Amino acid sequence: MTRAALAIDLGGTELRAAVVEANGHVAAFAATPTDAQGGPDAVIAQMVALLDRVRSEAPAAEIVGLGVGAPGPLDPDAGIVVDAPTLLGWRNVPLTSILSERLGLAVQLENDANAAALGEWRFGAGQGTQSMVFITVSTGVGGGVIVDGHLLHGRRGLAGEIGHMAVSEQPVRCSCGGLGCWEAFASGTALAREASKLVESGGAPEIGRLAGSEPVTGRHVAEAARQGDGPALKLLDDEARWLGVGLTNLLHLYSPERLILGGGVGSLLPMMQARIEGTIRERAMSAFRDVPVVAAALGRNAGLVGAASLMLQGSP
Amino acid sequence: MTRAALAIDLGGTELRAAVVEANGHVAAFAATPTDAQGGPDAVIAQMVALLDRVRSEAPAAEIVGLGVGAPGPLDPDAGIVVDAPTLLGWRNVPLTSILSERLGLAVQLENDANAAALGEWRFGAGQGTQSMVFITVSTGVGGGVIVDGHLLHGRRGLAGEIGHMAVSEQPVRCSCGGLGCWEAFASGTALAREASKLVESGGAPEIGRLAGSEPVTGRHVAEAARQGDGPALKLLDDEARWLGVGLTNLLHLYSPERLILGGGVGSLLPMMQARIEGTIRERAMSAFRDVPVVAAALGRNAGLVGAASLMLQGSP
Repeated sequence: MTRAALAIDLGGTELRAAVVEANGHVAAFAATPTDAQGGPDAVIAQMVALLDRVRSEAPAAEIVGLGVGAPGPLDPDAGIVVDAPTLLGWRNVPLTSILSERLGLAVQLENDANAAALGEWRFGAGQGTQSMVFITVSTGVGGGVIVDGHLLHGRRGLAGEIGHMAVSEQPVRCSCGGLGCWEAFASGTALAREASKLVESGGAPEIGRLAGSEPVTGRHVAEAARQGDGPALKLLDDEARWLGVGLTNLLHLYSPERLILGGGVGSLLPMMQARIEGTIRERAMSAFRDVPVVAAALGRNAGLVGAASLMLQGSP
Repeated sequence: MTRAALAIDLGGTELRAAVVEANGHVAAFAATPTDAQGGPDAVIAQMVALLDRVRSEAPAAEIVGLGVGAPGPLDPDAGIVVDAPTLLGWRNVPLTSILSERLGLAVQLENDANAAALGEWRFGAGQGTQSMVFITVSTGVGGGVIVDGHLLHGRRGLAGEIGHMAVSEQPVRCSCGGLGCWEAFASGTALAREASKLVESGGAPEIGRLAGSEPVTGRHVAEAARQGDGPALKLLDDEARWLGVGLTNLLHLYSPERLILGGGVGSLLPMMQARIEGTIRERAMSAFRDVPVVAAALGRNAGLVGAASLMLQGSP
């Protein structure tokens, strides 16, 4: 028997499950579209079915418990999903106790971005550090923060809402309702917004051609940039500068040994690295300038592996 | 015998020493102007003399060690003052080992803002919390951060450089060389700068009268504001708004249960509280809006008491 844990990654569009061994190896994996409109009971039934499936595919695993990554805000200690905006009816769901009763297993709940940060820290790009920040840049900007070997929770488990630090006085409204949030300038949504504006004004014909009749996305920008398209390269340059501005703040605030970039836009790091690092060198205090910005290593498995590690290695 | 620790607070203008009992009571205190131009040897001799004096004034104290708060950057684990800009010749001084050898005591070094945060957490306005941020607003903006019962250090002990997060794209140069830092807008220096401009333009005659031939300071603004002077009230209102902007970021980043404001400008909290809290309510995500902003309770003793607590209660 190999010591292992079950893991769930509850997303607004996809529900994913795995058996993860103590060394971070994913021994079995399954996914299904989340029944986001079905309410908690339907989604919990999906979870139980998926977990049965992965368990049967890894019969040699000695399961020590289940780790669950779910959208915040949630209370990891009480095991309650407080509110999951992308899932209908998920308000104050005591997910830990429900799953624990159904499965007869110990269950630990964690914010999805924190779970991914834990995964990268223990088995991915953050290995060997005591302090690191994981930043996921896709539709929004989220993250998880480990300082001195501790995953920051804070009051109500809400530490590390890094996308919602204000970095500008430009009156750009964020999805959170706030003004000038980092997310409002550096997210994939912001990149798509700027690209759309440029396409509409006739300034980015190649991006417009790639998008065709679909809405312009960061993906179109990336594709055009790979072909050397000037306007696309300029858009990515601006994106990289905004990332650098916020990352510099994270250096000053948390003093990590490494900044780890994940998510869809984060995966474009190779095209943005020079400008990101240039921006950090330009803006950070000297003691912080040599902290490396690296790509996340585990991709979409980070959250599953991190959630499982809550049961295998504990919550740090 | 009462269990107690010695404490040093090494400032650029004043050197302070105390005997602190395990309950936070200051049993003996002494201070002297720091020989800032004399180099480390001269200042260390001052420390030893001050410590002899306070020790003789608290003969019933059973001394378990010495805690030292000193200007950062410093390495608390290695016990080295890396660089103290306000003290001539203080570069890579192994202060812990020097003092330990001279005094025959265990010594623990900590960043002065962190020491003050610890003092407020254990014996002052932060008591009873697991997570809090201490913000000291005077010449600059500094602080110390406790999350989930841990004092954040990070790489090289540099976590919590809260004054140097960028909050604006206004090209206002900070003392650190950076652009748009919170400190450049919210420090006492920034308040004095804005007040001076206003006095020079003839827009603040009462502040000008109070300053006379001296440079305008935050103190003059506060004095005029207390008398109901319009321009002074407006200056404090702007100061409070800038404080609110940065404090909102700290809520999102660290999720403290309480924000604790200290320092010269911080002590003006009663005149600024409404605007600070209004700014937070306007800008913070809803889950963070009810976190209280409170005044530091220990004044200039916070650093001494916190440094002593490193020996009495340990480093959290």
